[in-house]
Amino acid sequence: MAERITGVLSPVVTPFKADLSPDAERLAKQCRWLLSQDVGLAVFGTNSEANSLSVEEKIDLLDCLSEAHVDPARMMPGTGCCAITDSVRLTAHAVKLGCAGVLMLPPFYYKGVSDEGLFRNFAEVIERVGDKRLRIYLYNIPPVSQVPITVALIERLLGAYPDNVAGIKDSSGDWNNTKAYLDNFAGHGFDVFPGSESFLLRGMRNGGAGCISATANVNPGRIAQLFATWSNADADSQQAGLDEIRGIFARYPMIPALKTAIAHYSGDESWVTVRPPLVELTAEQKDSLIDELDRAGFIMPGLAA
Amino acid sequence: MAERITGVLSPVVTPFKADLSPDAERLAKQCRWLLSQDVGLAVFGTNSEANSLSVEEKIDLLDCLSEAHVDPARMMPGTGCCAITDSVRLTAHAVKLGCAGVLMLPPFYYKGVSDEGLFRNFAEVIERVGDKRLRIYLYNIPPVSQVPITVALIERLLGAYPDNVAGIKDSSGDWNNTKAYLDNFAGHGFDVFPGSESFLLRGMRNGGAGCISATANVNPGRIAQLFATWSNADADSQQAGLDEIRGIFARYPMIPALKTAIAHYSGDESWVTVRPPLVELTAEQKDSLIDELDRAGFIMPGLAA
Repeated sequence: MAERITGVLSPVVTPFKADLSPDAERLAKQCRWLLSQDVGLAVFGTNSEANSLSVEEKIDLLDCLSEAHVDPARMMPGTGCCAITDSVRLTAHAVKLGCAGVLMLPPFYYKGVSDEGLFRNFAEVIERVGDKRLRIYLYNIPPVSQVPITVALIERLLGAYPDNVAGIKDSSGDWNNTKAYLDNFAGHGFDVFPGSESFLLRGMRNGGAGCISATANVNPGRIAQLFATWSNADADSQQAGLDEIRGIFARYPMIPALKTAIAHYSGDESWVTVRPPLVELTAEQKDSLIDELDRAGFIMPGLAA
Repeated sequence: MAERITGVLSPVVTPFKADLSPDAERLAKQCRWLLSQDVGLAVFGTNSEANSLSVEEKIDLLDCLSEAHVDPARMMPGTGCCAITDSVRLTAHAVKLGCAGVLMLPPFYYKGVSDEGLFRNFAEVIERVGDKRLRIYLYNIPPVSQVPITVALIERLLGAYPDNVAGIKDSSGDWNNTKAYLDNFAGHGFDVFPGSESFLLRGMRNGGAGCISATANVNPGRIAQLFATWSNADADSQQAGLDEIRGIFARYPMIPALKTAIAHYSGDESWVTVRPPLVELTAEQKDSLIDELDRAGFIMPGLAA
């Protein structure tokens, strides 16, 4: 088996053309820039507006990234959909292209579903894909999905599919929840990625595998630097620097703010486009965000239009 | 323009084969039975497990219903998806087949989205479908979608697309919310369907257009009867009878309970199958449900395996 993917990953924001169609060429370029910053590619995450894309659009984008020689060993595309048939189709395609893993949301339409129902969902996907290379990273993001992934569910999935169930991204925003995953599973072939670099250092000190974070789209180099040097003496100081930048973005709607920063620092204004139901930042929000970032000395090295 | 669809509609439960694929033949048969009870067909609703089906599976089922001569003038399929491209594809197909309308969820992955973002979503779908025959019924179901549809949003959509925005199904479960829709829009070319027959009589007395209700899958005849005779002297007594049956189903997980009742009273046990993340009733729940229904004198006339 190939080495497992670890470190810092970005849920890569998806560029759209004026007609709202995804722009594969600009996405490939953005992926290459992130890789140059030592950040991996969790394309089709929440911050990628993945659920605002059809399965066909996602398959087309994966094919384009593959043709553009973006390294699949550095990719963990989001493939969890509400319909099992969609999850299977997208997951099988990602495995076929050689992706290091897939990040899998639970089906998120029905609320209050049972662990039994969620187990059956993931089991059905694993069985139907039926590929030893499949590595699933579960995606816990109850503030958005409203469907939490419990320790008991993970235990059951790991017991049934130890070769396929590889880890979790925890975007609960609740350190105690991340800690529970780490305490139960770290070091047992199940990799825990906090969903924000705010928890990167704490995660690494407790056996974490890195982080998968929205703001790795805009601050990749410094986050990757902390991952690489977290046992150094200056780690807490590095973490404080990351928290400052994260704190600025967290004061705005996250996805439009990420795109606004990329548009501004790359000089490519078309990056601001989002698909409904999201809306771009207002002019006032944009000015305020850029002003805050400039005052913090924020830069995006190597990013070009 | 064709006459508008009104009355009682059922979010038709979707039968699955043992391999979890949708069974178009049994669905067509069930649709014909519902039509025989004077109940219309809101296929692909929440109770249809619509979001557990891919767009392709839904298009295939629509084609099969069309080929089976199920009357499209009595159909209001659910076509609202998280991705605009999916909503457009499915909606355009329903319009092409001559469906009376479509029931449209807002995109439901992101939470806390703005009315501006939701307006852009529906506007984009309407513009892209670009068909005068399109009649959209908005679908307000905040307990599940977590994305409410406000009076202000409806006003804006009606102002921009008076020919296409035709009404709403309100599954808020909150009569005050349904009443606000009725007070603002009833009689202004915008039809309000409460999302349960519990509100059928109150709805009709306030200008409602009928109801679209889970339990119309199992108790269609008597619900349609109240719709047809709501101004009769026995209307309150009829409503009480409907409430009793609704109350029984409401004590169980709704979708598996509906399927269990259909399986039991038709003698076709395969009806109990649900797709994950849902699970079928336990043996105890099933026995208790059927016992309660039998004691209430519940029947499903004309339903056969």
